[in-house]
Amino acid sequence: MPLILVTNDDGISSPGIKVLAKTLKTIGEVFIVAPESEQSAVAHSLTLHRPLKYEKVSKNTYHLNGTPTDCVIIAVKKLLPQKPDIIVSGINNGANLGDDVTYSGTVAAAMEGTLLGVPSIAISLVKDDWYGQNLKKSASGLLTAANYAREIVAKALDRGLPADTLLNVNVPERKKIEGVRITKQGKHIYEDAIKELSDPRGRKHYWIGGGAPHWESVKDTDLEAVNNGYISVTPVHLDLTNYKAIKFMKNNWEIEGNME
Amino acid sequence: MPLILVTNDDGISSPGIKVLAKTLKTIGEVFIVAPESEQSAVAHSLTLHRPLKYEKVSKNTYHLNGTPTDCVIIAVKKLLPQKPDIIVSGINNGANLGDDVTYSGTVAAAMEGTLLGVPSIAISLVKDDWYGQNLKKSASGLLTAANYAREIVAKALDRGLPADTLLNVNVPERKKIEGVRITKQGKHIYEDAIKELSDPRGRKHYWIGGGAPHWESVKDTDLEAVNNGYISVTPVHLDLTNYKAIKFMKNNWEIEGNME
Repeated sequence: MPLILVTNDDGISSPGIKVLAKTLKTIGEVFIVAPESEQSAVAHSLTLHRPLKYEKVSKNTYHLNGTPTDCVIIAVKKLLPQKPDIIVSGINNGANLGDDVTYSGTVAAAMEGTLLGVPSIAISLVKDDWYGQNLKKSASGLLTAANYAREIVAKALDRGLPADTLLNVNVPERKKIEGVRITKQGKHIYEDAIKELSDPRGRKHYWIGGGAPHWESVKDTDLEAVNNGYISVTPVHLDLTNYKAIKFMKNNWEIEGNME
Repeated sequence: MPLILVTNDDGISSPGIKVLAKTLKTIGEVFIVAPESEQSAVAHSLTLHRPLKYEKVSKNTYHLNGTPTDCVIIAVKKLLPQKPDIIVSGINNGANLGDDVTYSGTVAAAMEGTLLGVPSIAISLVKDDWYGQNLKKSASGLLTAANYAREIVAKALDRGLPADTLLNVNVPERKKIEGVRITKQGKHIYEDAIKELSDPRGRKHYWIGGGAPHWESVKDTDLEAVNNGYISVTPVHLDLTNYKAIKFMKNNWEIEGNME
């Protein structure tokens, strides 16, 4: 039986991680190491400024007062009996599509797994309202996502992932899933709403959030696939170099050598 | 005069941001919007769960109780008189080389600028001990880094950056800088040390950090350049798709279409 580490960024109590872990138990030995509390939009944060406290809450199940990235490091290096065969992060309550991958704690856990040399997959459920907060009502959507997650995990264990590459999987919440598409990362059009509010002493604060998500309709992207009712599977790597830009800069910047 | 937004992840009191802002004032109108406190390794975190408090501490200078990403959003959308011409993040106290870009708050600020459509540059000073804490002793290293930052910012304003691309610049702390190299992102070999310690009640905790950094010596990488005494300038984009992996998966996974 393969050893499967399950984590997330919504925290150990999230319905998404429970359904995922339960479903994956049919194909492997599952350990859960997840944040004690919700950690959305923490990106690939590492906790360096304080110690991390963990607690074993039941067999093979731990929570940790840290980020998803912390959970993966501590699980792989300390809590698990051996290096896991695969890491699965999710099921996230909401989309991680397009540029969201850079903010996402769910995807960051899979990034950390990849850096540690473990095949890793992030799974997110795209709600009808995209960033909705009604996960508890979505039991059937979660179950569908978990079943697809199991198929994808089984494929990854069987066929392998390309080196240094994680999968970012988004499952639309639909009665009928059209199928699976291997996609590229799409692009949001950001219109971050920032709310202005005043504290009890009349001092102005800002609160980020609530912006309506828009996206560019580009062929073969995760955003297009999900909007058409397909599950998107985007292979993501951590080499962020823009190789075309190297060429542009070498030709146009005249900066190499000593500028002084 | 171009409008320049300066931010960082070491916080408003860091010597690095002061030297950088002072140096950039010779080529533009500088605004500083930086975290109130140190935010290292926060990656591209967004603060969504609480309001953000800011304070104007002097002319054109604000601090905010948030992450570098928060600072960029609030600065661009709320605090600055107009969209900045360029965003410069740093000078970071320590390297942001290789895979570090995914953890780095310094680089994340430049990512956010890029997502907001503003040319953005991250500048880090690579200490002799790489992740050293002796920044105050490095006044000459900082000054060198700031002078190079000014040249690179001037080039970016003059020649432009490729679309959706930020520059990740690392300056070695050396008496003699060999020159500038346009590089690709290198790769660390991770050996994260995790310290085990006990709290006053005897309970075990883990503390991440202190691992000795190793790296693969690969030609034309940022790591190689810096180790040879050159400043590395790596163009970084936010499309994390592994296009080669799309091909591999389409050929080997037989997953597209409906799996049920």
